[in-house]
Amino acid sequence: MSYARQMLDTYQRTVNLDPGLLAAAIDAAGDCAQACTADNDADLSEANLADLVRCIRLCLNCTDVCAATAAVLSRPAEFDPDLTRPLLRACVAICISCGNECARHAPHHEHCRVCEQACRRCERACQDLLDALN
Amino acid sequence: MSYARQMLDTYQRTVNLDPGLLAAAIDAAGDCAQACTADNDADLSEANLADLVRCIRLCLNCTDVCAATAAVLSRPAEFDPDLTRPLLRACVAICISCGNECARHAPHHEHCRVCEQACRRCERACQDLLDALN
Amino acid sequence: MSYARQMLDTYQRTVNLDPGLLAAAIDAAGDCAQACTADNDADLSEANLADLVRCIRLCLNCTDVCAATAAVLSRPAEFDPDLTRPLLRACVAICISCGNECARHAPHHEHCRVCEQACRRCERACQDLLDALN
Amino acid sequence: MSYARQMLDTYQRTVNLDPGLLAAAIDAAGDCAQACTADNDADLSEANLADLVRCIRLCLNCTDVCAATAAVLSRPAEFDPDLTRPLLRACVAICISCGNECARHAPHHEHCRVCEQACRRCERACQDLLDALN
Repeated sequence: MSYARQMLDTYQRTVNLDPGLLAAAIDAAGDCAQACTADNDADLSEANLADLVRCIRLCLNCTDVCAATAAVLSRPAEFDPDLTRPLLRACVAICISCGNECARHAPHHEHCRVCEQACRRCERACQDLLDALN
Repeated sequence: MSYARQMLDTYQRTVNLDPGLLAAAIDAAGDCAQACTADNDADLSEANLADLVRCIRLCLNCTDVCAATAAVLSRPAEFDPDLTRPLLRACVAICISCGNECARHAPHHEHCRVCEQACRRCERACQDLLDALN
Repeated sequence: MSYARQMLDTYQRTVNLDPGLLAAAIDAAGDCAQACTADNDADLSEANLADLVRCIRLCLNCTDVCAATAAVLSRPAEFDPDLTRPLLRACVAICISCGNECARHAPHHEHCRVCEQACRRCERACQDLLDALN
Repeated sequence: MSYARQMLDTYQRTVNLDPGLLAAAIDAAGDCAQACTADNDADLSEANLADLVRCIRLCLNCTDVCAATAAVLSRPAEFDPDLTRPLLRACVAICISCGNECARHAPHHEHCRVCEQACRRCERACQDLLDALN
């Protein structure tokens, strides 16, 4: 069980959110931030670097948005849907863009295939949480 | 002139965004992230700490969202309104909440007064940029 | 297998570092950043908040240093011991302080017990990597 | 006067650190994080991209370490030299490497010239603070 889930289980939660959905989004966003950072570094070593510029830029944005999303979701005590909703939407949007771009390079670069998986998983986990908020 | 504006002026910009508006949002978001971190640390030293818990939590979220916003706006070459719009909305939302909470404590704590100013400035700069995107 | 390890296994690594040690430090630092953010939020809800101020402050520093450490370690292609060594030392130092403080509160607060574990694991993983660098 | 300095002036400081030196390091580190993010994005648009790979990687590390340094320095109430010293050393190390690499490209790329300035200023401000700690 991840620390995120263990932590949520120690709370006197006042917010009516499923801890499984919340922990899944926290873990997926944290993992996606890491995968995008690593994919970036790997892209920069490839011979077809010029083809990977868009991938690098999307990975950089994805890292920053996923990290902020993981942090805000890790503070459920003062949960505010007016903040969380647009932030999750931003996270879903960049995970879709970044996942699609990584998918284009996945046949040639194993690191893009792994990164695509991390983006898809984060997209789904954030979308599931968004659906639960609405 | 801030580095953000100097940097934007060195670009061959393809995106049709006013560099003054963009630099103002980058600088305001970066400053707000710092002010919220410092306000937080100051709140934790106050005798009326129990009254400041909501302020601390909002400042923590504000730092993370402002930092991500500043970073994404600092990468204008692959500018994507589908990401930038919800992210700016999240940033405006937390700056309003955090600014309002800091305003409650501003009469008693000078650090909350300074932090309120940083939040209000960031809220306006991000809203101006949002208006320009629409 | 974590994304960090999967990613490292897709690289043509030029740096002579054990990928298991590196992935362990990346994962432990990312997890510790999350646990400290969550512990923080939980501390702020406790009745004995005044006793937890030092814990909150150490957790905040621990999150920032662990996140930076995880990010830098996730970019092994341009590995620089002159940067990585002091950064790992900073990470070990804050994980020791934060772990010790969490340990003081662990008997009363389950979230501090979980956070202590995350800090100890990160301390060990970063120390193991430091030892391998020397 | 920056928010960082204004904030420091509202504190009942217990730590014996010159607030001017501390605010200078906080501001320089925050600005350097932003400049490196922007330089990165600009590098990725250049025709001689392959020559700029090392510059991009150093800028990415510089952003993460400067951001963590700015955040930790923004929390002076629980100031710990055992954490701050190695963190400042890591920050000085990456600012030197990144500044030197940007200097190589400064004659060709204005954005690298601006980024070099940001790195040099951060290096000096962090070194000044380190000297004051010793």
